[in-house]
Amino acid sequence: MTRRIRLVLEYDGTGLHGWQRQDNGATVQEHLEDALRELLGARTQAIGASRTDAGVHALGQVVHFDTEHPSIPAHGIRKALNSALPPQIAVLGAAEVAPDFHSRFDSTGKRYRYRILCRPVRSPMRRHRAWQLGLELDLEAMRRAAAELLGEHDFSAFRASGCTARTTWRRLDEIRIDAAGDEAVLEVRGNAFLRNMVRILAGTLADVGRGYRDPSTIAELLSSGDRTRAGRTAPAAGLTLVEVFYPGAVTPPQPSDI
Amino acid sequence: MTRRIRLVLEYDGTGLHGWQRQDNGATVQEHLEDALRELLGARTQAIGASRTDAGVHALGQVVHFDTEHPSIPAHGIRKALNSALPPQIAVLGAAEVAPDFHSRFDSTGKRYRYRILCRPVRSPMRRHRAWQLGLELDLEAMRRAAAELLGEHDFSAFRASGCTARTTWRRLDEIRIDAAGDEAVLEVRGNAFLRNMVRILAGTLADVGRGYRDPSTIAELLSSGDRTRAGRTAPAAGLTLVEVFYPGAVTPPQPSDI
Repeated sequence: MTRRIRLVLEYDGTGLHGWQRQDNGATVQEHLEDALRELLGARTQAIGASRTDAGVHALGQVVHFDTEHPSIPAHGIRKALNSALPPQIAVLGAAEVAPDFHSRFDSTGKRYRYRILCRPVRSPMRRHRAWQLGLELDLEAMRRAAAELLGEHDFSAFRASGCTARTTWRRLDEIRIDAAGDEAVLEVRGNAFLRNMVRILAGTLADVGRGYRDPSTIAELLSSGDRTRAGRTAPAAGLTLVEVFYPGAVTPPQPSDI
Repeated sequence: MTRRIRLVLEYDGTGLHGWQRQDNGATVQEHLEDALRELLGARTQAIGASRTDAGVHALGQVVHFDTEHPSIPAHGIRKALNSALPPQIAVLGAAEVAPDFHSRFDSTGKRYRYRILCRPVRSPMRRHRAWQLGLELDLEAMRRAAAELLGEHDFSAFRASGCTARTTWRRLDEIRIDAAGDEAVLEVRGNAFLRNMVRILAGTLADVGRGYRDPSTIAELLSSGDRTRAGRTAPAAGLTLVEVFYPGAVTPPQPSDI
């Protein structure tokens, strides 16, 4: 009998080539599928809710896979995978789910965090955790700009050129911008995200924060649909997938922060 | 004319062989002295307030060195060193100080932080930042045990076998034990520390927290002076030198947290 298992993963994206399996470079999917193959004695595909880029971290990536293995309980899968996976990847939870559960298609939303270091001197301890911008940012201006992005829009101006999504409409439910010590921390929640969307949002809002761009220009930028008019794609190291949302009570365990 | 310069350093101890120059393995002192030699055109010795072990981090290590270089201002030294140093080491501040200032001998105290991860699953994001103990700890019992350690004592039971300090008397001014999410965080402030002292304190207090050792036994352990009766030396990765104190207004800039 086929069982479908849902996993929640934490990973340090530093040195990994992102979620998705590819020809050159180790990815989270590849490490996970290798560990599953060893554990289950058969190949199985692991499908992740978010295709995080190289260098992007996750505190609560959600994944599902199928297995014919008759006896291993979900609890045992977690322990066995954590022994087999490399130190930069861990399974926080494993549960058997309905056979039609889909980590990506069933997701109703995701929450990402983007950290920007504002102090002038780079931070060795946070070099893989935050964009080392090194400039003071006007958070109030950034909040005004962010307010223009809330709701349902065509986010064509905020997607990478290689993005293959069929529709470019997305809904942003919340953008919080907080000072945390010497950092500006962006928390972005939406129903789904285009490729590099959070990083382009962070790059654009940072332009606002440093005075290069006025908050009043954001609505026009959005309606232009022109990627070349948005800000740079902020570095991957500052981005963390914090949580994936599902209808009802399927919300994964809230992973703790760094 | 000889000038004495004081630096405040942040470093990620992961992969480094600690502060002190040694024959095999890159150390903070070696990286810094190499960068200084290149900048100043002459060898100079960098003397650190704390000889942090391999894998131990610093948010506010204090260092001094002398230079005959006539023209480089302290501000320029910071910028130039940050260009020359590897990414895991940065200079947060540089200032010219009195020619008799000594980073180690003038220090009136230091503050260290020790992080213990209590959740059962290991954390990839914090694998180089916290002891991945994976057990719930009774913080109240740990606080009772810590109270026995405050004040001036012979800390022979809490020093590594290779420690060469002339006196084993030290004064602990404060041990705070706080829950922070799924971590227990120890903040230890004292006038000076023996080799591995904070890590042995952390290992011993963790024994109390997990119920292996009663808080009432700590006073006797202390007076026994017997290292073999204290707890294990907790892993280096959990330890950070947060701050070094000096008399008067010489306190270095308060470095930010991770």
